[in-house]
Amino acid sequence: MRHDASCFYCVKDQRLADLMIEVAPLGVSTLFLFREQSYYGRCIVAFRDHARELFELTPDELGVYARDLARAACAVQRAVSPDKINYGAFADKQGHLHVHLVPKVKDGLSWGGMFDMMPDPKQLLSAGEYDELVKKLRAGLAP
Amino acid sequence: MRHDASCFYCVKDQRLADLMIEVAPLGVSTLFLFREQSYYGRCIVAFRDHARELFELTPDELGVYARDLARAACAVQRAVSPDKINYGAFADKQGHLHVHLVPKVKDGLSWGGMFDMMPDPKQLLSAGEYDELVKKLRAGLAP
Repeated sequence: MRHDASCFYCVKDQRLADLMIEVAPLGVSTLFLFREQSYYGRCIVAFRDHARELFELTPDELGVYARDLARAACAVQRAVSPDKINYGAFADKQGHLHVHLVPKVKDGLSWGGMFDMMPDPKQLLSAGEYDELVKKLRAGLAP
Repeated sequence: MRHDASCFYCVKDQRLADLMIEVAPLGVSTLFLFREQSYYGRCIVAFRDHARELFELTPDELGVYARDLARAACAVQRAVSPDKINYGAFADKQGHLHVHLVPKVKDGLSWGGMFDMMPDPKQLLSAGEYDELVKKLRAGLAP
């Protein structure tokens, strides 16, 4: 197992909890709800190990990670009914493979372009609203 | 086969040729070199059919597309030795599944952030320089 003791995805410390809420473990990754919700339903699918690039995964890991991403995107679609989902993996410095799933709404924020990594001002939800979204996402993961 | 007669990835017309150069067919997709080369080695991996979201692919298509993406990213790594590759799929309006593979260099353009979809001014290469990159990418696709 590839592990980096300085990486918050590896050690799952407060830095992670400040940014996202765990929704569910997937095959080789974890689905998180991003706390910043300018794009309603925005999530992250973080690979379980500290891999930087897709080609560092074994063929089995790659296949399961692709299924995790598709399943998570389907759950986002079911939960918030966006008009399009964007997929982005950057992590130049942070270096732990994770994909942002960003639901877009026709003629809404960033429609037709990329997405903002951290919109200003931030759109945070109440604890009850996060709970509701997490429940919808978990329900959306069902076959 | 899902096909959209208005989509340049489906009909492969001049709009496509103006933006990118075909490098090689992959399993269920095509690897293209993006003409705008502010990020040296930037490519696109376009799915063969007009699918919008990852979860529209069959399990077989999804597995092969993931392998295509990893193989293409590995070819980019071998061709231009970046410090990190970014992966992005947007296409809100265009609607044909394709992933941008964007090589980043430490402390270079957009390092530590996302990437610019179309940097201004554009960095175009000479015909000979494009040919050289295409050859390197094809060589990098070998096992």
